[in-house]
Amino acid sequence: MTKQKKTLTVIGAGSWGTALAIVLADNGHDVRLWGHKKDQIEEINNNHTNEHYLPGISLPKTIKGYHALEKSLEGIDTIVLAVPTKAIREVTANIAAVQQTPLTVVHVSKGIEPDTHLRISEMIEETMPLELLKDIVVLSGPSHAEEVSLRHPTTVTVASKNREAAEAIQDIFMNQHFRVYTNPDIVGVEIGGALKNIIALAAGVSDGIGYGDNAKAALMTRGLAEIARLGIKMGANPFTFSGLTGIGDLIVTCTSVHSRNWRAGNMLGKGKTLDEVLNSMGMVVEGVRTTKAAYQLSKKYGATMPITDALYHILFKDTHPKDAVDQLMGRIKTHEMEDLMDLRQAFTDCSS
Amino acid sequence: MTKQKKTLTVIGAGSWGTALAIVLADNGHDVRLWGHKKDQIEEINNNHTNEHYLPGISLPKTIKGYHALEKSLEGIDTIVLAVPTKAIREVTANIAAVQQTPLTVVHVSKGIEPDTHLRISEMIEETMPLELLKDIVVLSGPSHAEEVSLRHPTTVTVASKNREAAEAIQDIFMNQHFRVYTNPDIVGVEIGGALKNIIALAAGVSDGIGYGDNAKAALMTRGLAEIARLGIKMGANPFTFSGLTGIGDLIVTCTSVHSRNWRAGNMLGKGKTLDEVLNSMGMVVEGVRTTKAAYQLSKKYGATMPITDALYHILFKDTHPKDAVDQLMGRIKTHEMEDLMDLRQAFTDCSS
Repeated sequence: MTKQKKTLTVIGAGSWGTALAIVLADNGHDVRLWGHKKDQIEEINNNHTNEHYLPGISLPKTIKGYHALEKSLEGIDTIVLAVPTKAIREVTANIAAVQQTPLTVVHVSKGIEPDTHLRISEMIEETMPLELLKDIVVLSGPSHAEEVSLRHPTTVTVASKNREAAEAIQDIFMNQHFRVYTNPDIVGVEIGGALKNIIALAAGVSDGIGYGDNAKAALMTRGLAEIARLGIKMGANPFTFSGLTGIGDLIVTCTSVHSRNWRAGNMLGKGKTLDEVLNSMGMVVEGVRTTKAAYQLSKKYGATMPITDALYHILFKDTHPKDAVDQLMGRIKTHEMEDLMDLRQAFTDCSS
Repeated sequence: MTKQKKTLTVIGAGSWGTALAIVLADNGHDVRLWGHKKDQIEEINNNHTNEHYLPGISLPKTIKGYHALEKSLEGIDTIVLAVPTKAIREVTANIAAVQQTPLTVVHVSKGIEPDTHLRISEMIEETMPLELLKDIVVLSGPSHAEEVSLRHPTTVTVASKNREAAEAIQDIFMNQHFRVYTNPDIVGVEIGGALKNIIALAAGVSDGIGYGDNAKAALMTRGLAEIARLGIKMGANPFTFSGLTGIGDLIVTCTSVHSRNWRAGNMLGKGKTLDEVLNSMGMVVEGVRTTKAAYQLSKKYGATMPITDALYHILFKDTHPKDAVDQLMGRIKTHEMEDLMDLRQAFTDCSS
């Protein structure tokens, strides 16, 4: 069966947008890669590289860089939105201003908006007029951009309210190295992807203090439980947290040297201030904003989230990282099943 | 509250037995550490070190090495059994031959016996007469011995059919660095601890081939699902696999440089044969025997276990590691929830 070839636009030429452009180009699609930095787009078109974000990687020549948004969208019915959470509103508003025909929007960002507490797909629904939005699909999972660009085996999940839309996107991205699975639970997929960054920050803090793998594994175990506790209250399917966008993404983000959130946490654990960390990163650290949003959400929904709480106090209330982590390690209930009780209740509710 | 001090015997002077002896000594207990190698016991008593197993660590002087089993058990009512799975029968039979009074046996081994398919506590029940067995408690969780000996924060679970016995052991081991939680599900705790070694071998194979963190995270995600599938059929509580002896232990064993099973898998992935790997390790690799047992159990219980299956063929049927892993990566059902369906069913059954 020959797959249908399309022309698609990837909005955002950071590491993840560029890596996904490579996957699409490998699958024979014509890819337009839009970015807001003119010299970066020239580099993509002239040298077929994007050195700052994917050092050492040659891009397929069928990836064309675009700096003019309107031009990059001409005749397009599907876009991949790969911009940081805090740029989502501005970029989608700009798209809405120039776009005439309906779009399928595949978003690949991981965050929750502070104060509004909206998931990414909800933010897109707010900023783009209904008649321009055919479908929203989220693509998420354990997937470092660097490894995807090297064609290392990777598995991700796509979720949408519309199963056919998810399956169409699955078909466009799927290849031998990049395996794509569908899941109807867009709420759970978005929440799992967003909240794991908080646990990655915490895991980095623990490592930065000098604690070992035992402490980190305990944090991750309890981290998944607290992600699930909030997610279930927000309407997610509990089983999503046992899948690629739950456990899988949590593992890859907390244990890999590629993870920005882990790296930021690690610097905090070594004694740097949040400002120093953010200045030295030079890339967006989604987990910081997400911690604020999740902290607010835990209060709103009455979900116990001790790790989020500890991190919120480290980031925004000057609590000393070691004090916060030590308190956390001592806080687990002494009967393990009691700690899993909310989760147990949620599974029971969900299954009945 | 002053804790009661006891005299306890740790049977087995490998890294884990020695690290646990340190925890007990830190808590003020008198610890007898039995080992079968005379020169090692002399080293423990004369130099207060156990260099081969815990290099660079000074042992508390209240740990006394014993080479005579009968002497090490004089007046003792609680032992910690820290020997490899394949030595459990011989060692417990030797204990039964010299012991006169009932014992609480805390076992800390992780495996399932091939052919008989018995868990460790069941093997102990088979080899020790009922009148000598007061209680069996399993202690398990994400806990590298090296880190425990350095007093890095660690959390483990103790499980027993008798809650009071579990709580007594919790009390003996618990301290500021070593947090101990109870769980009534001895079946799930033993199965989680045993089967994660299979997934660690597979993660090592993937890393040895040169695949990255994305592939490993996918293997671990699916690995936990297949552990739970078999475990539930064997009578475990599904929620145990969301806890320290499930996700927690899986993470630490698959992602840590300390893990023997990961190291063995890594060598297999790089092209070494099983014999070469076992010869070069110089320590027991529990996952190899456990893979055989779990493979047999998956057939017996009709549980789908693709990773165990792939590893069984790499270890015992000369299947090329890369072929097995590539096949595995391509095998996930395309709809993620279908892959989690058995699990979903089990949770539903369990909750109803």
